Amino acid sequence: MSKTRVVIGIDPGTATTGYGLVRMNSHSELEEVDYGVVTTPSDWEEPRRLLFIYHALREIVEKYQPESCAVENIFFQRNVRTAMRVGQGRGAALIAMATSNLPMGEYTPSQIKQAVVGYGNADKNQVQQMVKLLLDLDQIPQPDDAADALAVAICHLHTSQKMTT
Amino acid sequence: MSKTRVVIGIDPGTATTGYGLVRMNSHSELEEVDYGVVTTPSDWEEPRRLLFIYHALREIVEKYQPESCAVENIFFQRNVRTAMRVGQGRGAALIAMATSNLPMGEYTPSQIKQAVVGYGNADKNQVQQMVKLLLDLDQIPQPDDAADALAVAICHLHTSQKMTT
Repeated sequence: MSKTRVVIGIDPGTATTGYGLVRMNSHSELEEVDYGVVTTPSDWEEPRRLLFIYHALREIVEKYQPESCAVENIFFQRNVRTAMRVGQGRGAALIAMATSNLPMGEYTPSQIKQAVVGYGNADKNQVQQMVKLLLDLDQIPQPDDAADALAVAICHLHTSQKMTT
Repeated sequence: MSKTRVVIGIDPGTATTGYGLVRMNSHSELEEVDYGVVTTPSDWEEPRRLLFIYHALREIVEKYQPESCAVENIFFQRNVRTAMRVGQGRGAALIAMATSNLPMGEYTPSQIKQAVVGYGNADKNQVQQMVKLLLDLDQIPQPDDAADALAVAICHLHTSQKMTT
């Protein structure tokens, strides 16, 4: 029987960084630990926003002590300007995880859909419905960035479980 | 007569981050303080590379105690994949600067060329030649990322001087 594991999923950004912590218990059942978003005011300068995200994520990791983290691989999306901003937020998240010595898993959007819904072309709503179902929640987690973060955490638990069994 | 000022310019990246420190003395003359690059091995995982950049830049700031920093605004360049990677490196640099409470100036490529060479469409070689000349160096600073970092530091000193006089 495998041990209980807690992982943190992150949906990076500068304005809004989603996070979601999921526990897999010794029966391989998933449980929501916590989820939410770190938001930074748009009138703050970028360095201050990134530092805030870094500290906020470190506090969350400190509180829940996950054993690893997972982040969506978003290199294939969006326009250049958005990519640069998301990259900066992603950098803040990755440094926070590295400071805490957390191993990181990276997953493409289709890997996440495959792991959560069962097929790689699932739409956003299907992913969110499955997150609600798998974590036995009363409603779809809000906001979307938090639901996305939970989805990548679930993907990480499913994938790394397969890898180690 | 204005006081002596030291600023750090940064040319962000994940593989190579250029930095350049320039002093403006009380006669408004520019002097090179230090320059170089922080490089990270390509076989390291991204979080480790970003954390390394963060720590390396913090050490440099600790050593030279610049009063402010300057970074090129590169939101209008490159492809999405490159933009994301540069964004991550830029995030690491910005968090390092914010941790040290350094105010930051951002300049577009044409602002830097205008400030260093005198016109916004100057080519890379003209910028490098002017960096060499302005800092009274024996040769063009190498590698390119270090020269670019010195250029943005010079731009910052020229621009912020104009702003405050």
